[in-house]
Amino acid sequence: MKVYLDNCRSTAVDEEVIRAVADSMKNHYAVPSGLSSIGMRCVDAVKKSQEKIAGTLNVEPENIVFTSGGTESNNLALMGVAYANKGRGRHVLTTPIEHPSIINACEELKRNGFKVDYVRVNCEGFIDLESLEGLLNSETILVALGHVNHVIGTVQPLKEVCEVIKDKNEGTVIHVNAAASYTKVPLDLSRLEIDMVSLSSRKIHGQSGVGALNVEENFRIKPVMHGVTSLSDLRPGHENVPGIVGFAKAAEIGFRDMEENMVRARLLSERLVKSILERIPNSRLIGPEKGRSPYISCLSLLDVEGEAMALQLDFLGVTVSTGSACAALRLKEDYVFQAIGLGYREAHGSIRFCLSKYNTLEEIDYVVDSVVKAHSNLARISVFKG
Amino acid sequence: MKVYLDNCRSTAVDEEVIRAVADSMKNHYAVPSGLSSIGMRCVDAVKKSQEKIAGTLNVEPENIVFTSGGTESNNLALMGVAYANKGRGRHVLTTPIEHPSIINACEELKRNGFKVDYVRVNCEGFIDLESLEGLLNSETILVALGHVNHVIGTVQPLKEVCEVIKDKNEGTVIHVNAAASYTKVPLDLSRLEIDMVSLSSRKIHGQSGVGALNVEENFRIKPVMHGVTSLSDLRPGHENVPGIVGFAKAAEIGFRDMEENMVRARLLSERLVKSILERIPNSRLIGPEKGRSPYISCLSLLDVEGEAMALQLDFLGVTVSTGSACAALRLKEDYVFQAIGLGYREAHGSIRFCLSKYNTLEEIDYVVDSVVKAHSNLARISVFKG
Repeated sequence: MKVYLDNCRSTAVDEEVIRAVADSMKNHYAVPSGLSSIGMRCVDAVKKSQEKIAGTLNVEPENIVFTSGGTESNNLALMGVAYANKGRGRHVLTTPIEHPSIINACEELKRNGFKVDYVRVNCEGFIDLESLEGLLNSETILVALGHVNHVIGTVQPLKEVCEVIKDKNEGTVIHVNAAASYTKVPLDLSRLEIDMVSLSSRKIHGQSGVGALNVEENFRIKPVMHGVTSLSDLRPGHENVPGIVGFAKAAEIGFRDMEENMVRARLLSERLVKSILERIPNSRLIGPEKGRSPYISCLSLLDVEGEAMALQLDFLGVTVSTGSACAALRLKEDYVFQAIGLGYREAHGSIRFCLSKYNTLEEIDYVVDSVVKAHSNLARISVFKG
Repeated sequence: MKVYLDNCRSTAVDEEVIRAVADSMKNHYAVPSGLSSIGMRCVDAVKKSQEKIAGTLNVEPENIVFTSGGTESNNLALMGVAYANKGRGRHVLTTPIEHPSIINACEELKRNGFKVDYVRVNCEGFIDLESLEGLLNSETILVALGHVNHVIGTVQPLKEVCEVIKDKNEGTVIHVNAAASYTKVPLDLSRLEIDMVSLSSRKIHGQSGVGALNVEENFRIKPVMHGVTSLSDLRPGHENVPGIVGFAKAAEIGFRDMEENMVRARLLSERLVKSILERIPNSRLIGPEKGRSPYISCLSLLDVEGEAMALQLDFLGVTVSTGSACAALRLKEDYVFQAIGLGYREAHGSIRFCLSKYNTLEEIDYVVDSVVKAHSNLARISVFKG
């Protein structure tokens, strides 16, 4: 059996999306332009895609800017706002558990004259509202945080977070990275004072290489790249119409089935976590039990090394990833675990199980058996074993 | 009959490429990573794509960095080298006829403390080697120029250009934008002292949203965006494997058939230009007769307005674009024409015919008839007509 549980990094592309992208490659190969019929069809395709995605967030279609993915959306949000508003202030807030594209963009801002403070999070990854309020000041031009943490699944209380920020400093721009939550955890932007939201196609069963940034119109932002543009002043380079059409199709499907998929994901996650905790002594859930995305469960298996577990599981047909090591071929420090105060052994025995709408009960039972088997193989030879 | 002649902006995607992208979407949906079998298949797919593209340029596969398109490649090249080398000098050279992503990135550099000089070009768009030599100095960290001009098709004498630059200042980094020439005009980088080359998938019958930058290893360059990366330190965000696989397939096909396609394109272009010049009085070729890409012919039809011609031709099924108005929905000044000294009337009557490997003799004859018909319709009501 093959079971793919690395859906926080990338998801299997929906068959309907593959067909939509292939059709669009055949029909929308021109650049979006008013000077030809085929160019107008491309304009229409992009506008319809904007409408579809805007509909899922309850925002204005023309505020959807397409990018090459979540990383570019996050870079555009952070650097675009920081450089456009540096006359107003040079202070940026984020948390220490954000996606590397947020953390690394912040570190780049620090090298360029900005002050970046990291708001405290608690041991479950929830943002500390007192720390947030204490760090906010009149120079704070931007706060960037993730809706759902990509490693441990914590769902931030966005309403409270936004209230704290806007009460203290109305002009502070709020950016939310929704890559790990989009179409998986409800997000109605008409009810929140959020100024920018990053989305990623590859995380919602769309094609990779496509993302979006929703940009409200009440603040200044400048492009990160420069050139000529078809439809957006913020993002040069003619639109990747097939990728965008596929992204919108994936968003439409994901939003339509969100509730139903959430219920199933919750059931499967609960069964997975409960079974592993029962069958593997000393194992425990990292991240919150309540207020966690139904799709993300990060478990620590004390006696073994996460990388070794991932390789053993791969041998059994199960794809997972380890903790916050998002860096594929090169292993990075588990900065998320450090921030929530996890010890070395727990962090290094962590496995991230990220489900998708495609997973079944049968698969989950197979995964549990495989985890138990792999753990037993490895625990026997573990250096950690006392 | 439908004839697409706007191939300088975007090309029809090859059927083989569509299949390759669709297959890759099915098989390569994970992020490239050594921790799982599917991740390793993605690593392999990216590496094979690097090899294929490197083979067409005669460079090292690991120097191929994948991006989201030509615009990003150009931005990475210019800003990446400028910001990484500003300690050595803050002088950048380019020409006034480059693609907007080059010109606008240069203008951004000017706003950030760099001095940018525009090397003179002659009335056919060829770079003035004396002007180049005169402007080069010990502070010149970068020269950026296009191999083939995207509007008038001028093929720059890269060997001579590189010699002038490296003779005067060996440390100056040379960037060549090959978006309009790749797989269309030979470019063997093992025989030229070029440090960076930009490529675009959408211009060679690949999917849009993908590009590459070949980066030699003898100079410093820093990323424009920040985050986590699978395989390249210069470009964060996990690779768009299906897009990359499709790009490599398009490059392979294009390179394999380059000679044969060039011969046919030359034949068709000559027939197109000769027929229009014969049948429409006062029309003329803009750009060089010799040293021009066989795929690009820009013609000026004195008595009519280019935009109106494009719309009339579209009505007859023929897609073209007008001069340097690359900006689709918003019309930009014809800066390329200004730089080569073209008058207002000639510039505004310009039509760009950009062929691809798919065009046939029958199509070209239909285009000529359509141009004559559209011109006759418009000339009757033209405000230019004396």
